[in-house]
Amino acid sequence: MVSLRSLGALTMISACLASLPAISAKPIIYEAEFEQLHQQHQAQWQQQDQQLDKLLAALEKKNGKRPNIIHVMWDDNSLGEVGIPEMNKVLGIDTPRINRMADEGISFTRMYTEPSCTPTRTAALTGRLAVRAAMTKVGFPPDGMGLHADEVTIAEVLSKAGYNTAFIGKAHQGDIESSYMNHQGFDYANFSMYNQFPFMTWQPQMIPGGGIQGFFPSQWDKHYTLDKLFRPQAYINQLEGRKGEKPKLFTGTSAKDYKALLKTNKQQLLDYIKINADSNKPFYMAYWPHLYDFMLAPNELTTNGNTPFSEGLKRLDRDIGDLLDLLTELGIAENTLVVAMADNGPMHELAPIGPRESIFRGGKGDYLEGGVRVPAFAWWPGTIKANQIVGDMVSIHDLFTTFAHLGQASNYIPRDRVIDGIDQTALLLQGDGHSRRDYLHIYTGNQLAASIKQQFKRVWIGDRPGLVGNGFTDLYKDPREEHMTMPPYLWAWAPFDHMKARHERQIQRYPHRKENRDRPYKGIEGISEETKALGLKVERDYK
Amino acid sequence: MVSLRSLGALTMISACLASLPAISAKPIIYEAEFEQLHQQHQAQWQQQDQQLDKLLAALEKKNGKRPNIIHVMWDDNSLGEVGIPEMNKVLGIDTPRINRMADEGISFTRMYTEPSCTPTRTAALTGRLAVRAAMTKVGFPPDGMGLHADEVTIAEVLSKAGYNTAFIGKAHQGDIESSYMNHQGFDYANFSMYNQFPFMTWQPQMIPGGGIQGFFPSQWDKHYTLDKLFRPQAYINQLEGRKGEKPKLFTGTSAKDYKALLKTNKQQLLDYIKINADSNKPFYMAYWPHLYDFMLAPNELTTNGNTPFSEGLKRLDRDIGDLLDLLTELGIAENTLVVAMADNGPMHELAPIGPRESIFRGGKGDYLEGGVRVPAFAWWPGTIKANQIVGDMVSIHDLFTTFAHLGQASNYIPRDRVIDGIDQTALLLQGDGHSRRDYLHIYTGNQLAASIKQQFKRVWIGDRPGLVGNGFTDLYKDPREEHMTMPPYLWAWAPFDHMKARHERQIQRYPHRKENRDRPYKGIEGISEETKALGLKVERDYK
Repeated sequence: MVSLRSLGALTMISACLASLPAISAKPIIYEAEFEQLHQQHQAQWQQQDQQLDKLLAALEKKNGKRPNIIHVMWDDNSLGEVGIPEMNKVLGIDTPRINRMADEGISFTRMYTEPSCTPTRTAALTGRLAVRAAMTKVGFPPDGMGLHADEVTIAEVLSKAGYNTAFIGKAHQGDIESSYMNHQGFDYANFSMYNQFPFMTWQPQMIPGGGIQGFFPSQWDKHYTLDKLFRPQAYINQLEGRKGEKPKLFTGTSAKDYKALLKTNKQQLLDYIKINADSNKPFYMAYWPHLYDFMLAPNELTTNGNTPFSEGLKRLDRDIGDLLDLLTELGIAENTLVVAMADNGPMHELAPIGPRESIFRGGKGDYLEGGVRVPAFAWWPGTIKANQIVGDMVSIHDLFTTFAHLGQASNYIPRDRVIDGIDQTALLLQGDGHSRRDYLHIYTGNQLAASIKQQFKRVWIGDRPGLVGNGFTDLYKDPREEHMTMPPYLWAWAPFDHMKARHERQIQRYPHRKENRDRPYKGIEGISEETKALGLKVERDYK
Repeated sequence: MVSLRSLGALTMISACLASLPAISAKPIIYEAEFEQLHQQHQAQWQQQDQQLDKLLAALEKKNGKRPNIIHVMWDDNSLGEVGIPEMNKVLGIDTPRINRMADEGISFTRMYTEPSCTPTRTAALTGRLAVRAAMTKVGFPPDGMGLHADEVTIAEVLSKAGYNTAFIGKAHQGDIESSYMNHQGFDYANFSMYNQFPFMTWQPQMIPGGGIQGFFPSQWDKHYTLDKLFRPQAYINQLEGRKGEKPKLFTGTSAKDYKALLKTNKQQLLDYIKINADSNKPFYMAYWPHLYDFMLAPNELTTNGNTPFSEGLKRLDRDIGDLLDLLTELGIAENTLVVAMADNGPMHELAPIGPRESIFRGGKGDYLEGGVRVPAFAWWPGTIKANQIVGDMVSIHDLFTTFAHLGQASNYIPRDRVIDGIDQTALLLQGDGHSRRDYLHIYTGNQLAASIKQQFKRVWIGDRPGLVGNGFTDLYKDPREEHMTMPPYLWAWAPFDHMKARHERQIQRYPHRKENRDRPYKGIEGISEETKALGLKVERDYK
């Protein structure tokens, strides 16, 4: 575990540097639509920001440092599955601690993510639409791609401003060297290169229960199998590393390893907080735990819903409870913002034993609300008021910009690329109605699939692009998006067209990056010759 | 308005009679499945009932009378649309007073109704599955059928035990004399024979907005129309009457009449409570307001959801708030149980401007959860504890038996027919986990469509009855019933078969009644010759 207590003096200096007024820097290049809003509200927002900064300065004075920030993010949950006790009852799950967290702070009802793990995590790290960094695909091993070295993450931004930074859990940002979390700004990182499936379904005992099919050598066709490299067995996943060092393999991919990892990662979180609680430096922690565990015996199913997924939520709930309790016990709750949320909608292909649709239609991978509208909560006793239900639009990208503001690190946000995140400090501190976002562009892979403005949504893809084209709906009237239509929304036709045009013209000026490909598993300590050979094979595929 | 203050002395006598122990009467004939539960829990429930009756006796002593009971029931709402502030935000509606009612008492997450207005209201009135009374059809004018004279309603049961009783709003129990609410046990009734559609869509101004089609004479085919009686124009709906008297036409069916009626009915509710607050007799009020009003100008749409339906919910919310406030102001809140709920799921054919699916699949008319699982709340300050989320199964039929218990009127429950309602006093007074129901048979028209036991649901209808037959699901895992299947539930095959067999064997012993047909509009004062002629025509159709 990382401790940087000794760097107290340096912290003070960098904190001062970070406090330089943002006006001295070049302006951030926001997404084009935001510029519309900025022009309309500039004066008011400037005044509001002054108030907010006074409040934050007073807090810093009181606490002796800037706030700690913990971002908890888990897999595949739709709005309502956690945080609403009535929905708990409907689904047979029990998340009392997340429900209490919701009661003690903000419960967001319009937190948007990208439609799957990898792009959402890229968006959280960079504050940018994942498509800009060519990170819209979900990587599976062996992949040979990942986050570009020069994408600037929130860990880098906050590090520069003097924060301790740590990553624990599921990163899913690729298996190439540039993407390793300890090379992306985190002082300490215990991270997976992929999702949980290498751990969880690639287990011989999972086959009868519907696990991976045709993978193990015993299942290979006895007569016709020619290519022995098509199904290589040498995958790895979880690494551990410190900034400036080579990461090493942290654990294997057996079921036992995975179950141990779930516990270890949680303990690491708590240890990290204990160690850093009284550091002179504030900390930023991305705790993105592995949620799934489908390798449960029947007697391990203890929720009413009795699915492996509901057990995962129960574990998550307990862990979040332990986290909040620890912050309170250590006396740092009032100087710690915790944002807890899912990374995208339900992977309802796994229903009914995994996540399933509830309020919204669609799920992981979809541009529908079910794909991108997730449960999300913000907790900061004394600063965020209790019992707030927030109906404002807010998106995963906004966390980057908001955390940077709270850490007085906005000057380290890069000025050479488009930033999609909007500073939502006002929303956190002043509540419902104070969002600076009223729109979102939703990508499916590289395609702009839909755009939202206020409660209206327009879908861009479909089979009638040239004729009447594309469907509109009102998300209040039609939350399940089952009544896409045009006539009542003809007033919105041109405004949506212009919004898309602004977006696309800006992309021409700031084009998307190319996919970042490299040989997988470079620069990792402790990996087998087989895994190295696997990396080399993939490198040849793309040469 | 009715006032029976002068009958105080008589009330005391009948209250004493009603207090005779139920043991002296023949036992109630419960639905067969309940007998299974009763055998398993008899001793415990007997003991629990003694405790409950002590509590109720203490309350009676304190308040000088048995509790008032108000049953508020409205149209076409799915679980979650009201009572959950997060869902309010999702749907762009605002029901702060219902949400507060939920916070101040019980919010049910498994309140079941029948799948549409008429059967649900029959079930509420009689405590019986509507199919037993041949009341599964939704009546439209001119109908010529309705509730049998000798069905015993909760108003009759409580009247006999000395309650003042009143009905205000939508009855939808038919247009024949036996069905009029003032002939069915209510001392006062201001009731509609049908739903709101005669008022609301049969308006010339509604045609461009999607109202009734082809109805008005100006729309009749100029060349080929032979039958002038096929589209008669002499419909009526809302009547007013007192027990033992002929009802009279209360209002016409113009849009103006309807809008006035919405206000009048609400004022009648408040007036009734004021007048009866300090009566020696407790009262039972069925306030089943007309919810829909699609005849709104754009500037009358004031909710974020800005649909006529969300405006209806807003009005309902305000009215419920005024009701609860009045009870509190009058000092009778602690002696008044208010149960507020919808009558069935969303009529999602009216989406997106009317109700739509949200958490559950399906709606009005469906045996799916979306058809029969509704928002429901119970409020009784001092007796029902605040902040209860109840996940128990409970059904509309149970209100009959429960209200009878609370009114010490169980002896007046008829013993010659099957009663589907279960006494849920323990659930109201002791909370989650104290339901005496764990099953429900759901009818679609005259067909047994599905049965629920615990969280499991089996659908009986479909196109493969003789082969593998019928689907099962687990409502926790699959709340939208999208994964009906058999293999994981083979253990439940025979138990469900037996449950159905028990139900059907009991029906053989106590067969369903025949539809109760008669000439419509008999015994009403103040109707036109045209309306009378319409009644006579319908009578001829069924001779």
